[in-house]
Amino acid sequence: MSELRLNQVTREWVIIASERAKRPIDFMNSRSERPQSPPFLSSCPFCPGNEHRTPAERFRIPADGGWKIRVVSNKYPALTDGEKKRAAEGFRRSVTGVGIHEVIIESSIHNMSISSMEQADVAEIVRTYKRRFLQAHKDPRVEHVIIFKNHGEGAGTTLDHPHTQLIGTPVVPVQFRERVQSAMHYFDDTGECLLCAILRKEIEEGVRVLNDTEHFLTFIPYAALSPFHTWIFPKRHSAVFSSITEDEITDLAFHLMTILSKFYRGLDDPDFNYVIKSSRPEDDGNEYCHWYLSIVPRLTKAAGFELGSGMYINTSLPEKSAEFIRSVKVE
Amino acid sequence: MSELRLNQVTREWVIIASERAKRPIDFMNSRSERPQSPPFLSSCPFCPGNEHRTPAERFRIPADGGWKIRVVSNKYPALTDGEKKRAAEGFRRSVTGVGIHEVIIESSIHNMSISSMEQADVAEIVRTYKRRFLQAHKDPRVEHVIIFKNHGEGAGTTLDHPHTQLIGTPVVPVQFRERVQSAMHYFDDTGECLLCAILRKEIEEGVRVLNDTEHFLTFIPYAALSPFHTWIFPKRHSAVFSSITEDEITDLAFHLMTILSKFYRGLDDPDFNYVIKSSRPEDDGNEYCHWYLSIVPRLTKAAGFELGSGMYINTSLPEKSAEFIRSVKVE
Repeated sequence: MSELRLNQVTREWVIIASERAKRPIDFMNSRSERPQSPPFLSSCPFCPGNEHRTPAERFRIPADGGWKIRVVSNKYPALTDGEKKRAAEGFRRSVTGVGIHEVIIESSIHNMSISSMEQADVAEIVRTYKRRFLQAHKDPRVEHVIIFKNHGEGAGTTLDHPHTQLIGTPVVPVQFRERVQSAMHYFDDTGECLLCAILRKEIEEGVRVLNDTEHFLTFIPYAALSPFHTWIFPKRHSAVFSSITEDEITDLAFHLMTILSKFYRGLDDPDFNYVIKSSRPEDDGNEYCHWYLSIVPRLTKAAGFELGSGMYINTSLPEKSAEFIRSVKVE
Repeated sequence: MSELRLNQVTREWVIIASERAKRPIDFMNSRSERPQSPPFLSSCPFCPGNEHRTPAERFRIPADGGWKIRVVSNKYPALTDGEKKRAAEGFRRSVTGVGIHEVIIESSIHNMSISSMEQADVAEIVRTYKRRFLQAHKDPRVEHVIIFKNHGEGAGTTLDHPHTQLIGTPVVPVQFRERVQSAMHYFDDTGECLLCAILRKEIEEGVRVLNDTEHFLTFIPYAALSPFHTWIFPKRHSAVFSSITEDEITDLAFHLMTILSKFYRGLDDPDFNYVIKSSRPEDDGNEYCHWYLSIVPRLTKAAGFELGSGMYINTSLPEKSAEFIRSVKVE
């Protein structure tokens, strides 16, 4: 018989469908073969020499000479510069599409990826996330910032060149409000941060843990929404991603490299998304919000049931998935 | 500049990205060619003669002889029969995976579809939905019932034979609770059902309306979450799908056939999901809940931004999409 588990953070129920359960290997090769990429592709707008093909550069490392990381405006932005105007008419609510939409090009090498980079280079990417997160929040029109990566066509990108996106929206998404509300109720009930409690419980049980170091815990959630859905939690209570310290940046780089390498080897370079879920810098002292990073390999498709109910059917057992990922060896 | 619109029913913000806007024709052929299906396929478990390949039959029309509609248990059920046991340990919540998971086989003809059926046959399918919805709610373990269709691989099915699924879950999904809460607040504020207000406004404006008859309105929502996202609302206030009358069944069949035929012709047989969103039969007298049917053509992919924020980027303008669909001629 399957089991339903409540994802305590999102309050979404997940059907852990052990009747339909697949072995980890069954999730491999669920997509068509990814063609071998060259280190340089003259047609790629993110490759060196094609800098003129991207919109305004907003940041680069190093500042002079050949770059390792570039931040540019998105060529097809979902949100742009302009005047923020809210409109309310009857029950209708709208806002002009102002905000920030930028691309963080993570390497000058076309076929590089976080799973094969040096740790210092990954740390530089995380440091860039922090800088751009802070910068985006300086815009008074921006109320919420999402940093996310789409890797592979099944995850919503057609550009192979390694990159991450940042979107600063002029409104607060309801999903965020609901997560905060649920964390607030937990805090009011127990006097404790829900994510701190989850951290303690996951470390104590150990069965879903993938990587445990001084500053971070990588694990598959008890109620993972889909196969190999993975969370990276900072151990230090902190509401805001940009409060991350230099030591923590180095450690997060290690966690990211490790899990993405294991996915690459163990699941045959799956399409995936990752997202940093954080409050605003202004909320730094908040006792019940706790930022984290969520990784979703796109191994299965959400269908009518998921769309219609907001519940999930997960055809893998989180404990078995964790066991498999722990067994994948990387350097 | 793009515009953000609030979907009043789900409270999700949608970025209507007119900067990225595509023409309706750009959404066509976004999938690989669907192979031509024969009217009978000996390897299909839903084709006549293969009745022994499906689990227990729960219902059929007609009762004797060659069937037109069959309802069977799902061969790989997400939920099964058994004892309902809830567990709570610390912040953890789980429930045994009991419930109902059945398949409504809509025709004995393998390559039939709602868009090419006779209206009386579609009405019979809707009538079967109603019967199975009521039957599922008789199970005291079931707290919520979702009726949904996955059409095409991009919508989560690999079975071509026309069918719908019904899942009865032993818990109430948080998405449903949030929709109800939002409708309740609107009712408390205004003394009116939110969906009744939306109906009136959409009819008054007309620009997003696709089909307007005595009992139903088919339209593209003001804040459609994705291209050609479509709602069918019953005009009579009613919290529960199963309160649908015979006249309404006939009319809903007409709306379903019409919109699916238009999608088939206008968007080249897109993958799609549809879902009936309804309260329980016990809530029939509720003043602020209003059942409806939601159709989501799967023309774009949700990526990291959508996963991470619960906001949506819609690269089509609802008013333009509606204009296009109205222009598609069907018999």
